Amino acid sequence: MAWAQSPKIHGLLLDITGVLYNSGEGGGAAIAGSVDAVSSLRTADIPVRFCTNETQVTCRKLVEKLRRLGFDDIEENEVFSPVPAVVTELKRRRLRPHLLVHSAALPDFDGLDTSDPNAVVVGDAAEYFTYDRLNEAFLVLMKSPDVVLFSLGMGRYYCETDGLKMDNGAFTRALEYASGKTAEIIGKPAKSYFLSAVNRLGVSAESVVMIGDDVVSDVGGAQQAGLRGVLVRSGKYRPTDEHHPDVKPSGIVDDLAQAVDIILRGQ
Amino acid sequence: MAWAQSPKIHGLLLDITGVLYNSGEGGGAAIAGSVDAVSSLRTADIPVRFCTNETQVTCRKLVEKLRRLGFDDIEENEVFSPVPAVVTELKRRRLRPHLLVHSAALPDFDGLDTSDPNAVVVGDAAEYFTYDRLNEAFLVLMKSPDVVLFSLGMGRYYCETDGLKMDNGAFTRALEYASGKTAEIIGKPAKSYFLSAVNRLGVSAESVVMIGDDVVSDVGGAQQAGLRGVLVRSGKYRPTDEHHPDVKPSGIVDDLAQAVDIILRGQ
Repeated sequence: MAWAQSPKIHGLLLDITGVLYNSGEGGGAAIAGSVDAVSSLRTADIPVRFCTNETQVTCRKLVEKLRRLGFDDIEENEVFSPVPAVVTELKRRRLRPHLLVHSAALPDFDGLDTSDPNAVVVGDAAEYFTYDRLNEAFLVLMKSPDVVLFSLGMGRYYCETDGLKMDNGAFTRALEYASGKTAEIIGKPAKSYFLSAVNRLGVSAESVVMIGDDVVSDVGGAQQAGLRGVLVRSGKYRPTDEHHPDVKPSGIVDDLAQAVDIILRGQ
Repeated sequence: MAWAQSPKIHGLLLDITGVLYNSGEGGGAAIAGSVDAVSSLRTADIPVRFCTNETQVTCRKLVEKLRRLGFDDIEENEVFSPVPAVVTELKRRRLRPHLLVHSAALPDFDGLDTSDPNAVVVGDAAEYFTYDRLNEAFLVLMKSPDVVLFSLGMGRYYCETDGLKMDNGAFTRALEYASGKTAEIIGKPAKSYFLSAVNRLGVSAESVVMIGDDVVSDVGGAQQAGLRGVLVRSGKYRPTDEHHPDVKPSGIVDDLAQAVDIILRGQ
């Protein structure tokens, strides 16, 4: 596989949902072979970061869930999620957010001033994307041209154990259209987001491979930032993704286990 | 006012919500002067059609509401709404719709086969735009590339007596983004829709003025179809609408009463 051979791979970014596990009722289920694949990367001493747009829970809860599913050596500081990034940005610009996020994710926003909001943050609120909550966020956006809209990633949809669900990118598009504003994207597929993750790995972008199940957000986003992007046929993958009009994956594999096999044979 | 003088006006299209009345709890309220303005047009023998994207109720209920508000000579066949147009289109193409519409609008779709749907129709479902209902519509769209998405207009928002509400255009954008499909728009601002309404008036497009409170959907849409588009400062109007980047209204007036005054003086 050409994608695994040159330039030599010095680091990996792994999407979490749809690559390590499928989400759903009861916490979801690990994808066959993924636990062993991560262990093999550790053994081979290839540095890994977990790069997710998951914003339905706090980072800590996400790591606890991954450990319960068998990924028992994952540390919180290896997980790269948009929430800490947007909190830093809000503080830097002294913005007071209205949070359209899942209630389980709220603790990661503790300590921010949310009075008289002049920004809206859209995470994966899932069942909290009610008509009333969307209208509340819309009214904040309409207060003034200066109110800023942030979207934590721009996912189209994801796969839960009971089927596909619309992701927050769709609801961001709804708010953009109604308000006439354009969201600032924090998370995949923003180029700056991939480059921050690469920076944490301490290697060059061209030596890093991103592995994900979202052809646009994971694969296309990584490629835009100078990484290789490999698509897995697990998670929300659909056969039409292999013929995407804009994104041509660097490689396509059945799952993380197969990707890691190929990588380790190429080292 | 140049817009009212040449070419001579031979017909009017009037938006309903925000021009005749403001919607809201208890059926809403007529806008001051609008009842008399419509009467004056009748007296002056200027043909009028009422051109709405209102899809929260059946056409019959809408006319009953307008009569209760004082517009007592409005007939159902003078109201031009997207629902009959989409029903005709669904029948012509033998499509079976999944209806993401307000429950009060359902009777207008009676008699259509909705089993094993191969189309989705998005109306102004308002509080029926729940997370679960949006996901149901999304799953129908994802069944096959052949499933068609129809949107009854592409309104951004409208004004109720208790404030602004997101309109169905926003939810259509959410479904478009999640599914990767592009909606076929039935209603304002589709050019074909304005031309059908002009055809009903039996006059030429350049002799018709559309009066509405939506700078894009009413004013811009009418202009694209060769009509004049006049913006009222009632309903959901906001001062920024007068400096829209793409749409320059043919005229701007305080309300329907003022528009009709100007028109009748110019006749």
